[in-house]
Amino acid sequence: MRPKRIAILGSTGSVGRQALDLIRDQGELFQVVALTAGKNVDLLARQAREFRPLLIACGDPARAGQLRERCGNGKIHVQAGPEGLRAAATLPEADLVLACIVGAAGLESTFAAVRAGKSVALANKEALVMAGGLMIDSARERGAKLLPVDSEHSALHQCLRGEKRSEVARLVLTASGGPFFRSSAAALADVTPEAALRHPTWKMGPKITIDSATLMNKGLEVIEAHWLFAIPEERISIVVHPQSIVHSLVEFVDGSWICQMGVADMRFPIQYALSHPDRMPSRLQTLRLEELPPLEFLAPDPARFPCPGLARDAIRAGGTAPAVLNAANEVAVDRFLHGGIPFPAIPQVIQEVLEQHEPRPVTGLEDIMAADRKARDAARAAVERRT
Amino acid sequence: MRPKRIAILGSTGSVGRQALDLIRDQGELFQVVALTAGKNVDLLARQAREFRPLLIACGDPARAGQLRERCGNGKIHVQAGPEGLRAAATLPEADLVLACIVGAAGLESTFAAVRAGKSVALANKEALVMAGGLMIDSARERGAKLLPVDSEHSALHQCLRGEKRSEVARLVLTASGGPFFRSSAAALADVTPEAALRHPTWKMGPKITIDSATLMNKGLEVIEAHWLFAIPEERISIVVHPQSIVHSLVEFVDGSWICQMGVADMRFPIQYALSHPDRMPSRLQTLRLEELPPLEFLAPDPARFPCPGLARDAIRAGGTAPAVLNAANEVAVDRFLHGGIPFPAIPQVIQEVLEQHEPRPVTGLEDIMAADRKARDAARAAVERRT
Repeated sequence: MRPKRIAILGSTGSVGRQALDLIRDQGELFQVVALTAGKNVDLLARQAREFRPLLIACGDPARAGQLRERCGNGKIHVQAGPEGLRAAATLPEADLVLACIVGAAGLESTFAAVRAGKSVALANKEALVMAGGLMIDSARERGAKLLPVDSEHSALHQCLRGEKRSEVARLVLTASGGPFFRSSAAALADVTPEAALRHPTWKMGPKITIDSATLMNKGLEVIEAHWLFAIPEERISIVVHPQSIVHSLVEFVDGSWICQMGVADMRFPIQYALSHPDRMPSRLQTLRLEELPPLEFLAPDPARFPCPGLARDAIRAGGTAPAVLNAANEVAVDRFLHGGIPFPAIPQVIQEVLEQHEPRPVTGLEDIMAADRKARDAARAAVERRT
Repeated sequence: MRPKRIAILGSTGSVGRQALDLIRDQGELFQVVALTAGKNVDLLARQAREFRPLLIACGDPARAGQLRERCGNGKIHVQAGPEGLRAAATLPEADLVLACIVGAAGLESTFAAVRAGKSVALANKEALVMAGGLMIDSARERGAKLLPVDSEHSALHQCLRGEKRSEVARLVLTASGGPFFRSSAAALADVTPEAALRHPTWKMGPKITIDSATLMNKGLEVIEAHWLFAIPEERISIVVHPQSIVHSLVEFVDGSWICQMGVADMRFPIQYALSHPDRMPSRLQTLRLEELPPLEFLAPDPARFPCPGLARDAIRAGGTAPAVLNAANEVAVDRFLHGGIPFPAIPQVIQEVLEQHEPRPVTGLEDIMAADRKARDAARAAVERRT
């Protein structure tokens, strides 16, 4: 069997680096054909020298020269800017595109991969959050296969193997609860970025770690699950499971529940998406049932953690609203990380921006991008008013 | 769609009665075409008057007259004895045979259903324990579908939907641990039948409740799982899970685990087998995740609970050995229930009988039945020596 040819959009980020670690360990099964990064041309060049892709691209056009210099043997095609990312996303030689550029920045290239009819492993959840309808319609139209990389959606994908969608009663996303699940409202007001970045169970990038602390991550995941599995938002629940062993659950109409479990290590869902429809023998450490702490499932508190409710508001509003939610969240998280606003202001900023927004129908990516830009301005203004 | 036509072998037992409760609630989906009982002709006659099957049969020929008297309107065909049970098992009008006669008594009729190429929902685990190889070979040869009713195997069956057998790393059967899981060896010596019959989580018949207290139930289930899922015994583990919420788990080669959960109520797995391949909307109470006790997984102690080890010895010995294990266990449990031997003597009797037995290859049901009879004699003798 010839190796599966992989393009990685965002190979210098957390998911991208872990994917390359897995590919390094499973040499014969995969071939890397494209790699992209935003600004980290140092690491991108090192990755390119090791994995010898056909194409590499950096999002920042100003760094293209630097990148060419470092991979200057002429064998690797170097591109830059949005066209560069698009070229990597649509490379004819790629069998699977791993889309792991964080945030709205990854939307365009992910969408390009879907439009090109690629199998797309989605680690960029914003693509579905912002443009779920477009993405799903295009995937259907172009025969693109969408595979989740998020651990929760990978879990749901596994729970739904061999099952009929019409027999699903409910999807249940597990949340670790983040570092502040048991903190009082008063304590939340004093949370520092450093404390929020110390996630109790998962090792992830900074944006998603903060989303995890506010539970917005779970709100975004409800939207993502809605699009990926064609289940209405009101039949997607969230449960706090502090041990992060059960990664999500499905309840069926007959009262039976199927759940997926595993070590809290992103390499498992990344590997699942890379090797799908096969399951690849893993060299990673697996679960030891007898050594697990007792597994608990707790109801989240919407008063201290309003973000999932805001996400549900956005999906019910429809059209551009989820993109606006996402943009406002990105701005608010960024400002929190830079000391600009306190932790409880994150949902407040998002709510203000959502309330100002008049949702519009979405006919193309431009509608999404326009709503995104306007929402960022509105979010920045909302942050300003607080400083 | 025409209703699925069901024959129930052992309709007056615990599983049979629960199956009829479910069928009563789902009137349009099922039609009862045959019912059988051992001796309880009162209840069998009542069930027959309610469900109007084509055929009823009682295992005890001496009670045939009594039974005819009570269903004497001539519309229901009444039979008795082994031929009666066989007629019910092979009834041409039946789509699915629910085999729930407890113990070795159910083997012949279950085997007859398989030989007739029926879909067979197996609540009688002894059929697979005693004659697994024969049963599986015949099912393959005759195109009979075997569906587990045991909650653990139903769980495994569900976890394996849409999965490749070659990608299974391990099956893990959960055990409640029974009422004595935390009892000392000294305390086990004083266990009364009444105490052993009080199962902490499952409501089941007396034989299986004692098997549950000795963990022999789990040993028999390892053998059953080995045959049903074609997985070698050494890749089937047992874990004690006192909450009886997770009904079994599958570990895959990629380090991912799938498990099935639900309320500890036999009606769920019975319903799964009755409605397979569909999942039937249930009116039973389902799980409330947020109200669950913490879920624990503990290693069983082979010193206090030697029965699973004896079952593994039997399957490794092969041939007639598992039938001998089963027969010795049935005799020992019966004698314990009637006050003849203490609780810790159950595994001792079985071990003595197994050690005396020279395993023979199995070419037909006669080999099994002969080994069964000899083992019962040997077990009775072993019991005698203790009194």
